Amino acid sequence: MKNFYSAADVADIERLVDQVIALKDQGLRTTATQGPGSGKRMLLLFFNSSLRTRLSTEIAARSLGMEVISMDMGQSWKWEITPGVVMSADSAEHIRDAAQVISSYVDIVGIRCFPTLQDRAADKRDALIKTFIRHADVPVVNLESAQLHPLQSLTDMATIRAHFAEKVPRIVLSWAPHPKALPHAVAQSFLQWAGAMQWQVTITHPDGYALPEDYTRGHHYEPDQRKALTDADVVYLKNWSSHDPYGQVLNTDPDWMMTTEKMALTNQGLCMHCMPIRRNVVATDEVLDSDCCIMYEQAAMREQAAQVVLQELLKDTGS
Amino acid sequence: MKNFYSAADVADIERLVDQVIALKDQGLRTTATQGPGSGKRMLLLFFNSSLRTRLSTEIAARSLGMEVISMDMGQSWKWEITPGVVMSADSAEHIRDAAQVISSYVDIVGIRCFPTLQDRAADKRDALIKTFIRHADVPVVNLESAQLHPLQSLTDMATIRAHFAEKVPRIVLSWAPHPKALPHAVAQSFLQWAGAMQWQVTITHPDGYALPEDYTRGHHYEPDQRKALTDADVVYLKNWSSHDPYGQVLNTDPDWMMTTEKMALTNQGLCMHCMPIRRNVVATDEVLDSDCCIMYEQAAMREQAAQVVLQELLKDTGS
Amino acid sequence: MKNFYSAADVADIERLVDQVIALKDQGLRTTATQGPGSGKRMLLLFFNSSLRTRLSTEIAARSLGMEVISMDMGQSWKWEITPGVVMSADSAEHIRDAAQVISSYVDIVGIRCFPTLQDRAADKRDALIKTFIRHADVPVVNLESAQLHPLQSLTDMATIRAHFAEKVPRIVLSWAPHPKALPHAVAQSFLQWAGAMQWQVTITHPDGYALPEDYTRGHHYEPDQRKALTDADVVYLKNWSSHDPYGQVLNTDPDWMMTTEKMALTNQGLCMHCMPIRRNVVATDEVLDSDCCIMYEQAAMREQAAQVVLQELLKDTGS
Repeated sequence: MKNFYSAADVADIERLVDQVIALKDQGLRTTATQGPGSGKRMLLLFFNSSLRTRLSTEIAARSLGMEVISMDMGQSWKWEITPGVVMSADSAEHIRDAAQVISSYVDIVGIRCFPTLQDRAADKRDALIKTFIRHADVPVVNLESAQLHPLQSLTDMATIRAHFAEKVPRIVLSWAPHPKALPHAVAQSFLQWAGAMQWQVTITHPDGYALPEDYTRGHHYEPDQRKALTDADVVYLKNWSSHDPYGQVLNTDPDWMMTTEKMALTNQGLCMHCMPIRRNVVATDEVLDSDCCIMYEQAAMREQAAQVVLQELLKDTGS
Repeated sequence: MKNFYSAADVADIERLVDQVIALKDQGLRTTATQGPGSGKRMLLLFFNSSLRTRLSTEIAARSLGMEVISMDMGQSWKWEITPGVVMSADSAEHIRDAAQVISSYVDIVGIRCFPTLQDRAADKRDALIKTFIRHADVPVVNLESAQLHPLQSLTDMATIRAHFAEKVPRIVLSWAPHPKALPHAVAQSFLQWAGAMQWQVTITHPDGYALPEDYTRGHHYEPDQRKALTDADVVYLKNWSSHDPYGQVLNTDPDWMMTTEKMALTNQGLCMHCMPIRRNVVATDEVLDSDCCIMYEQAAMREQAAQVVLQELLKDTGS
Repeated sequence: MKNFYSAADVADIERLVDQVIALKDQGLRTTATQGPGSGKRMLLLFFNSSLRTRLSTEIAARSLGMEVISMDMGQSWKWEITPGVVMSADSAEHIRDAAQVISSYVDIVGIRCFPTLQDRAADKRDALIKTFIRHADVPVVNLESAQLHPLQSLTDMATIRAHFAEKVPRIVLSWAPHPKALPHAVAQSFLQWAGAMQWQVTITHPDGYALPEDYTRGHHYEPDQRKALTDADVVYLKNWSSHDPYGQVLNTDPDWMMTTEKMALTNQGLCMHCMPIRRNVVATDEVLDSDCCIMYEQAAMREQAAQVVLQELLKDTGS
C-alpha cells in the first residue's frame, strides 16, 4: 500500500478488515523496540482538533516501534495550494515545499484537514491532502480530509464484520440531527468502504441531505426513516450538513433522533456512531446506554485499524 | 492505589513520602525499556497550562518506560458533565463517553482542570475530574483540579520530611499577596496532606481569606503573621483568592509579602513555594535568593513524587 | 561545547561542518536505545512556531536516544527578564526561576524566541535566551533567537561545503522582497558562520537594509544586485526587515526577486534558502524548480546538523 487516502488505495479490503479483527482478538501489543516500525518516524499534522484519531494513531505507531511527532497546525499554518501563484498574501509556504521537506525527515505522514463547508468545489477537490500526497515522497495517511475518513471506515467495517462473520448484514445509514454544520467525510467514507465490502447500505435522511452520487452509487435511499430501520442489523448514526445549499443546517427536527422505540423496529440491530456524539440530540441516552450500542467497541477498534494500516504502509517503505 | 485524586486515595502516606525521598537520594534513573511501565501508556490532558507538572509527570512516566501523550485541551474541548442533558449547546462530547474511549487507549490518565473561581458550588464539586474518574476504567492522576493538587502536596511533604527526619516541624502556611485571583488547590491540598502526616499547620492570612473547614480542621489559625512565624521551622508561602465573596482579590497589602526581617522571626526556618512565584510580590528577592529558600529543591522533587505515584498506580493495573 | 548560542560557542567550526557532511554521507541512523543520548532528556521551548527546526531537532535528539518534550509557549507564557522587578504585571514567572527548575528536569534545552522587531535595543540584547543561558545549569541550544539561528547556519555551511570541498566558493547573500517584516537572525547568523569558515560573503540589498557591522565585518557590500551575482558560486536568498528605521518593510520592489535571467549571471551558481519560501516573491518558480536550487537538500541537512550539535553538547553533560 502506497498511501491511505481512500478505499481505492487498498488492494484487498476484506483482508485488511480481517487483520484488524485478528489483531483485536489477539489482545497483544507489539513490543516497540522490535516492531516493524522500529527506526521509522511518523508525523501527524492536525489542521483540526482530534481526540480518537490522534490517540489511536499515535498509539498504534508507537506500538509498532515508530517515533511519532504530533503537531497542531491550528490557524498559524496556512499552506499555499495553488501552483504558480505569487505568494504575497497570507500563506508563508507552498504545500509542495512543505511536502518535500517533511518527506526528508519522516517515513509516514498523517494529515487531518476538514472541509471549509463554504466552498463546495474546493472541498470536493480535497486539495490540501491530495496535493500533499502528490508532492510527498513518503506514504500519507488520511486522518479525515474534506471528503473521506478511511481510518474510521476501516474501523467501522471491522466492527461490523466482527459481529457478522457469516452473514451479510442489513445496514442502515441514518442521518441524525445536530446543531452545527458537520463535514460529510464519515458518511461518504462509510458508503465507499461498505460498497467495497459488497454491503449495500440503506441511506435515510431528510430532504436536502442527499450525498453525492459518487458515494451513494450501489446503495439504496429510503426517505422514511422507520421503513429504513425495519429489520436492520446495523444502524449507523451520523449527522452531516446539506450538500445543496452547501454546508447548511436545514433541519434539526428531533424526530430524526434515534430512540429505543425506533431501534425496536430493527432486527435486534446494533447501533454505531463514530463519536463524539451529542447525547439526546443524535440518539437518546436510553439507546446509547443499552446493549445494542457498540460505539465504545467501535472506538476501541480504531487502534487496531490504525496499526494494520501503518503495518501495510511500512511494508512499502524501505529500511 | 486505584486513583490519585486526593490524600484519601493513599493507604500509607508516610511510606509514599519516604519512597519519594529514597528515590531522590538514590539519584538513579530507571531504564525505560525495563521499567515497570514498559508497554503502558499515559495520557496527560491539560485544560490549563502547566510547566512543572507537565515536565515532571511526563519525565517520570517515561523513566518508568511508559509511552506518554500530552494534549493541550485549551478552549476547543468542552466536555459535558451534566447527566441526561440534551447536548444542543457548546459541548460536543459527554465526559462519560470521553472517559470510556480514553480508557480503551491508555493505561493511566492525568488531568489538569482549574476552578472557574466564579461558580463556588461547581468548583467545590470538582465535577470534571470526579466525573471522569467515575466513568474511566483506568487510574486517574490529579494534575491539579479545582480543589486539590496532590502531586504538589506529596512533593511538599517529601521536601519537608527530607529536612526533618526526626523532628515534627513547626509549619506555617502564610498567605501572600498576588495581583490575580488564584485557585485554592495548592493550599487546601497542603493542609490535607500535612494533616495526614500528623503535622499541625499554623495558617495565617488577612480577613476574608479563610479556607474551608474541610481542610483547616486539625490545623490552627493565627491572624497575626508575625506571631505565626515566630519559631517556625517551615514557612510555606502561597496566595489564594477569597472564598467569601468567592474568587476575589480582596487584599494586595505588600505588608503580607515575605521579607528577611520576617524570616528572622523563625527558627532559621525554611521558605517554600510551589512556583511559579512572583518575585517582590510574594516574597522579596532577598528571601528567595537566600539559603533558607528551598523552592528549587522542592520543584526538583516533583519528578520523584510523580514517579512514586505512577509506580503505585501501575501496581494496580494489569499487565 | 557548553551551549550552542552562536558560532562563538564552537571551538572548531570546520570540524563540526565536516561531521555534519560525514553523517549525511553515512546515511545511517543511530539506534536510539544505544545512542549517546540514551537516558538523557531534551526540552524544546517554542515561543514562535516552527516546522523544520522542530522536526529536525526533535528527530535528531530521538535518534541519539534522548527523550524529547516540545512545548508551544505561545502567548500564555511570559517570563520576566528584568532582575529585581516587582512582578505585579503580566509575567507570572521570572526566567531565572524557570531556568533553574527546567535544569533540574532535563539535560538539554532548546529555545526559539523571535525578536519583537519593535524594540531594537531589546532585540539586540537577545535577552530571553541569553538570560536563560546565564541561569540554566544545562546546555542551551538556540533554535532561532532574536539575533541568531546557528542550527540553520551550521546546515548552510555544511550544504555549501558538501558542494565545494576543495574550492573557496564565491558566496552572495542577496536580499529578497517579502510582504511582511521578517527577523534578521538567519542573515546575521549566516554571515557570522561564513566568516568563521573564512568565507568572504558579498552582501547585496536595497538602501535601508544594511545589517549591523558586528555581522558584516570581513564581508563585502555591493549595492548592485546584478554585479554582486556575477560569477557567484552560491546565491543565498533571504529577506530581512530594515534596521534603521527598525523592523520595517521599506521596499517590496519585485526587481529584487531572483530570476533565471539573474542566475545566468552566476558561475552556474547554486541557489539556497532557509525556507519557508514565498514563491514568485523571493524567487520565481522557474529558479526554485531548476537544478540550481538546493533548498530541499539544505533543509534535509538540518537533521544532521542538529544531531552533530546535540552529540557535542552531550559530551559535556555528565552521565
